[in-house]
Amino acid sequence: MPNEIGLLEAIYTQRQITRYRPDPVPREAIEQIIDAAIRAPSGGNTQPWHFIAITDPELIEKIGSLYRDLWLGSLGATPAPGESPVYGAARYLAQHMPEVPAMILICADHSRGHAPHTPGQPIERGRYASSVWLAIQNLFLAARALGLGTRITTTHIRGEEQIKQWLGIPDHLETVCLTPLGYPRGSFGETVRTPAPQVTSFNHYGAP
Amino acid sequence: MPNEIGLLEAIYTQRQITRYRPDPVPREAIEQIIDAAIRAPSGGNTQPWHFIAITDPELIEKIGSLYRDLWLGSLGATPAPGESPVYGAARYLAQHMPEVPAMILICADHSRGHAPHTPGQPIERGRYASSVWLAIQNLFLAARALGLGTRITTTHIRGEEQIKQWLGIPDHLETVCLTPLGYPRGSFGETVRTPAPQVTSFNHYGAP
Repeated sequence: MPNEIGLLEAIYTQRQITRYRPDPVPREAIEQIIDAAIRAPSGGNTQPWHFIAITDPELIEKIGSLYRDLWLGSLGATPAPGESPVYGAARYLAQHMPEVPAMILICADHSRGHAPHTPGQPIERGRYASSVWLAIQNLFLAARALGLGTRITTTHIRGEEQIKQWLGIPDHLETVCLTPLGYPRGSFGETVRTPAPQVTSFNHYGAP
Repeated sequence: MPNEIGLLEAIYTQRQITRYRPDPVPREAIEQIIDAAIRAPSGGNTQPWHFIAITDPELIEKIGSLYRDLWLGSLGATPAPGESPVYGAARYLAQHMPEVPAMILICADHSRGHAPHTPGQPIERGRYASSVWLAIQNLFLAARALGLGTRITTTHIRGEEQIKQWLGIPDHLETVCLTPLGYPRGSFGETVRTPAPQVTSFNHYGAP
């Protein structure tokens, strides 16, 4: 990454990207963002993550269609009266998920944690959420640095068994987050948030 | 932050800091890192987080002593034979937690999520883990940018009720992570990880 972006510039312009250009994502870029993801700290430095980059258009079409059907089946193909604008963007993405240029499926690897998974036993979902989500934020920021958009999605979890079968994912992996990855239509830009003082206390809850 | 650190420099040198100098952390620095934390994406843009900065030495001593006792009570005051070096650092921190210059207690605010908390009902722990941990990684990186060390810890959760009472934290907040915050003794430096290719697959689990 020759012209390195500043940390704060990346953090303050990490917009959730809904619309993607069809241009393919270079393999080298995918490797770079995963290499940044694994620098995250993790509980006991167990690094309990696994990243599956999906670039095969047939797989993207299958997984994206499953995602779309789950999302629209749950939240509807047309806007509900008075729904938040956030849902409009998520619905657009759901409808176009089968044609995104790439996806990354981020998994928790339960064989790498403190309490290794016993084969044949169910995994304890969420056990490694902390470490995996820290890595995911690194991944999102590193993608931003390369001009690549991402978006936090978890709707695929309801179709996890099917996705695990398609991708040959073993039992000890829990799928945590599925992000599209691609160059955005439109631009990155500053995000708007509830101001920090409204969600910050000093020494006592509610004290400014 | 006049001399902004590069994104990748921050990501690749975000070492977990065990030993802290006693120098106080300026309030402005705390406000800056929380302002960066809240830029993280969140599910449905609900921003379900709350940050409690702890700078009062009496509170730090009380919470740090509770943390120390919980940690040493669980993992022992002296190294177990063959224990991972990670535990040695964590034990050192536990022993010195009552004297760190500052702490940030990061909480999930269950009144801000999609399924707002019903007063009197128990909260569903972990429900907003994804969003909160994304914000925590921003917080860690922004601290790094200011030369401030942090360390991921969750041992306090077993003493959560006591901490919530001391800080006046209401029922709808779940404490997620307690990080010390301060200028490190020693320096930041490159972290070592299991190389990315060992935790990455392309299109099919196990495919390089």
